[in-house]
Amino acid sequence: MNKIYLSDLVKRFGGELVGEDILISDIAPIEMVKSNEITFLVDAKYKKQLENTNASAIIVSVENSENIDIPKIITDNPYWYFSQISQLFHVRKKLPVGISKTAVISDSSTIADSPHISHYVVIGENVTIKNNCQIYSHVIIGDNVTIGENVIIYPNVTIYDNVKIGDNCILHSGVVIGSDGFGNARDNKKEWSDIPQIGGVVIGNNVNIGANTTIDCGTFTPTIIEDGVVIDNLVQIAHNVKIGAHTGIAACVGIAGSTTIGKYCQLGGGCAITGHITIADNTVIGGHTGVTKSITKPDLYFSVYPFSTLKEWAKNAVHVRNLDSIYKRLKTLENMVKPKTNS
Amino acid sequence: MNKIYLSDLVKRFGGELVGEDILISDIAPIEMVKSNEITFLVDAKYKKQLENTNASAIIVSVENSENIDIPKIITDNPYWYFSQISQLFHVRKKLPVGISKTAVISDSSTIADSPHISHYVVIGENVTIKNNCQIYSHVIIGDNVTIGENVIIYPNVTIYDNVKIGDNCILHSGVVIGSDGFGNARDNKKEWSDIPQIGGVVIGNNVNIGANTTIDCGTFTPTIIEDGVVIDNLVQIAHNVKIGAHTGIAACVGIAGSTTIGKYCQLGGGCAITGHITIADNTVIGGHTGVTKSITKPDLYFSVYPFSTLKEWAKNAVHVRNLDSIYKRLKTLENMVKPKTNS
Amino acid sequence: MNKIYLSDLVKRFGGELVGEDILISDIAPIEMVKSNEITFLVDAKYKKQLENTNASAIIVSVENSENIDIPKIITDNPYWYFSQISQLFHVRKKLPVGISKTAVISDSSTIADSPHISHYVVIGENVTIKNNCQIYSHVIIGDNVTIGENVIIYPNVTIYDNVKIGDNCILHSGVVIGSDGFGNARDNKKEWSDIPQIGGVVIGNNVNIGANTTIDCGTFTPTIIEDGVVIDNLVQIAHNVKIGAHTGIAACVGIAGSTTIGKYCQLGGGCAITGHITIADNTVIGGHTGVTKSITKPDLYFSVYPFSTLKEWAKNAVHVRNLDSIYKRLKTLENMVKPKTNS
Repeated sequence: MNKIYLSDLVKRFGGELVGEDILISDIAPIEMVKSNEITFLVDAKYKKQLENTNASAIIVSVENSENIDIPKIITDNPYWYFSQISQLFHVRKKLPVGISKTAVISDSSTIADSPHISHYVVIGENVTIKNNCQIYSHVIIGDNVTIGENVIIYPNVTIYDNVKIGDNCILHSGVVIGSDGFGNARDNKKEWSDIPQIGGVVIGNNVNIGANTTIDCGTFTPTIIEDGVVIDNLVQIAHNVKIGAHTGIAACVGIAGSTTIGKYCQLGGGCAITGHITIADNTVIGGHTGVTKSITKPDLYFSVYPFSTLKEWAKNAVHVRNLDSIYKRLKTLENMVKPKTNS
Repeated sequence: MNKIYLSDLVKRFGGELVGEDILISDIAPIEMVKSNEITFLVDAKYKKQLENTNASAIIVSVENSENIDIPKIITDNPYWYFSQISQLFHVRKKLPVGISKTAVISDSSTIADSPHISHYVVIGENVTIKNNCQIYSHVIIGDNVTIGENVIIYPNVTIYDNVKIGDNCILHSGVVIGSDGFGNARDNKKEWSDIPQIGGVVIGNNVNIGANTTIDCGTFTPTIIEDGVVIDNLVQIAHNVKIGAHTGIAACVGIAGSTTIGKYCQLGGGCAITGHITIADNTVIGGHTGVTKSITKPDLYFSVYPFSTLKEWAKNAVHVRNLDSIYKRLKTLENMVKPKTNS
Repeated sequence: MNKIYLSDLVKRFGGELVGEDILISDIAPIEMVKSNEITFLVDAKYKKQLENTNASAIIVSVENSENIDIPKIITDNPYWYFSQISQLFHVRKKLPVGISKTAVISDSSTIADSPHISHYVVIGENVTIKNNCQIYSHVIIGDNVTIGENVIIYPNVTIYDNVKIGDNCILHSGVVIGSDGFGNARDNKKEWSDIPQIGGVVIGNNVNIGANTTIDCGTFTPTIIEDGVVIDNLVQIAHNVKIGAHTGIAACVGIAGSTTIGKYCQLGGGCAITGHITIADNTVIGGHTGVTKSITKPDLYFSVYPFSTLKEWAKNAVHVRNLDSIYKRLKTLENMVKPKTNS
């Protein structure tokens, strides 16, 4: 996309144009936007930055739209609107169609139309790769894997056997899908014995998975990532976890085995979610929170212990160990004092 | 394994057969088991699921064995028994013996009998790989590495120089072993200077290591993982850590430098263990717990701050910063009230 | 380096020689040092180990130098001094100059003098690699990447497009640099839409990055790692983060988007740093701490909830949920009691 009229944006993405129907050539944040480009205002607190902006147009909510004298597109969701325009101007690189001679592909596998399969890719038995996939260098795909249309797999991804991936997914470098779930039984000498992990992984459509994230295969039934889930880097999803559609998971989250996360949830960075629990649809978990039991009511949950200087912390934190004693002493006092006030 | 008599299971794994000695063809959980298959009951709370099961036989403890009228194998450890039967029916895939022409193997290295060495593997100088190892595609092995018998190394694993791995180990994709320990000294301008890390890594027999886990080499002496340790995904084991035999480490755990974890310990997911401490044998650490000092008495330890809705959290958490003040005010009150009761 | 006189060490690294100017052949910690080698004392508590040491010389601060009758180098920074001597004796392996025939390098890229480019490396378009770089096997470098002099990139590293790396950097295996920042906008059905990430990554000189660490590209402007930063394993650095020069980041830290960490900071292992905040220069954050707001005053900050046995924890932790109620009950009591004492 080189240039587009504001009225064409409104035709594509909705909203209302207020002001002149100019051509714009890119989108950028308020502080770096140039003339002939459009910017966006997501939060009223940045509004005063507009005094010095070079923007020729702006995406803005009706609430924040007053006293702006450049052409405006009024929308109830400026951030999403920005994402759509940015996608128009900044199209993801598409690799040329072709299969590298160094790619090792088993005869029992099927590659559909218009693939890019890059250097040193290895593809196992009975793999199906649908149309328009882009498989970067050094990707390894095991046996009995199905990959949908328009999937992009960045370098150094490993996909084990028995994984099914839907359409339009993006897997970033270092992702591992389908490795053994961490299932172990202890014998009577307390030594570990593997439990075979044969359930595979099923990933829906439009799923993005961040760099070095790991998704284990299920024990008997698959680990499931539903449509539209977005997952950041260094996330661990254990065996038999189910992630509901359109949930977002920030970096460094760990989800233990057999837990079900609802649809439209948001898990903040560094959360630790215990196993065998269920999180309700639309739940939001704050960053670094430990979730130790099921959540049945969607809300914003949080558990981070407030940080402070070591000196302050050392003074206060010691009492956390004695809260029960503090509570009992308080009750004793209440019993001593309160009856007196009645007498 | 196609089919096996219950009496043959008892011969292999112990326990007592109660009921008819039937042939079974697989094992599965209660809710998915089919006719002619065996199931297992690990927890009494699932017992009522047995009312509708298709299982032809069951593994069960004596406590939970009443009122079950299919053939039973009575054992004091049904979960381990299940793992053994599942291993019979679901044998891990074995790659065909052979060395890919694209594997790059130095002349100074020795590969013993019956290896599978897959595409684009790179093996450095003075490496010894013992019998029956399976090295998947794109594994990189440095110099002066020894790998025991029956080891399986999944794709995209990197092993640095000076690593010793025992027999029957499994390394999942993305594992990095022997990378530099994080040892740095600050000069008088507070700029960092590397401390050479030359101690290597020693891994015992029967060790499983999960996807994208990292184990750093020691500074002067090796980082040590003893026999039978099982490690989940995305775990960090720093330089000069020692993990005692038969310890289990769940995902996303970080263990800082020079810490010793005892034998038969269990570390829950997302634990953070500080450096230069010692954890006693048989210690269990709950998930997401921060361990800041040595543990000398085995027990179950825990530190997760209870999560709550943001509204509840905001109301309560602020007082954590003031616990010392609360405590002092309580003491003042006690001093004021208690003498009165004596008078 | 085979052997060196103590006086030559003083010439190179400063300090004062007290005692005979002997030749030493290596450096090692007190408990493993051999005759003709030098050791170092960093902490007075290890001083009694010196009674049985085999060391022929020692690096020590003036405070700890009394009653040691082997030759001493007195310095105010024995730990750094040790690192320098260790670097002399334990030089990092240098791979032979040459480019593997299996490396795939685009014609538009430029490799300067004395490179080692190992097996199956893939290098994209318009890449510049300066003098004396060592690129290990299976490294993937995207388009429009610049890599400075003397850079070492260990196996299985992935560098995306538009990344700039300075001189003397070390990237450990499994590192991913320049993957998409986790920027997503929700539409009115609460489904996620990608925000294009086009800002790239800029890494300064003398930066070390640990195994399986991920550094995302910025949205419009680059993610920035300044000179001399050292980063441990499994660290997540999100889009548009800026890490100030000479900061050290221990393993398993996650830093969310658009946060600025100052210069000379130290982040303990497992910290979770929220997005869009600023941490002052010289700040130290304790391990496993959740940082939820900006820090303007450098100090040592901490937030780990003290761990205890499950039994103790269960008794005390429940009250954390009721601190506000405890506080209010305390105030009520104070109001009841205190006026009485005035009357």
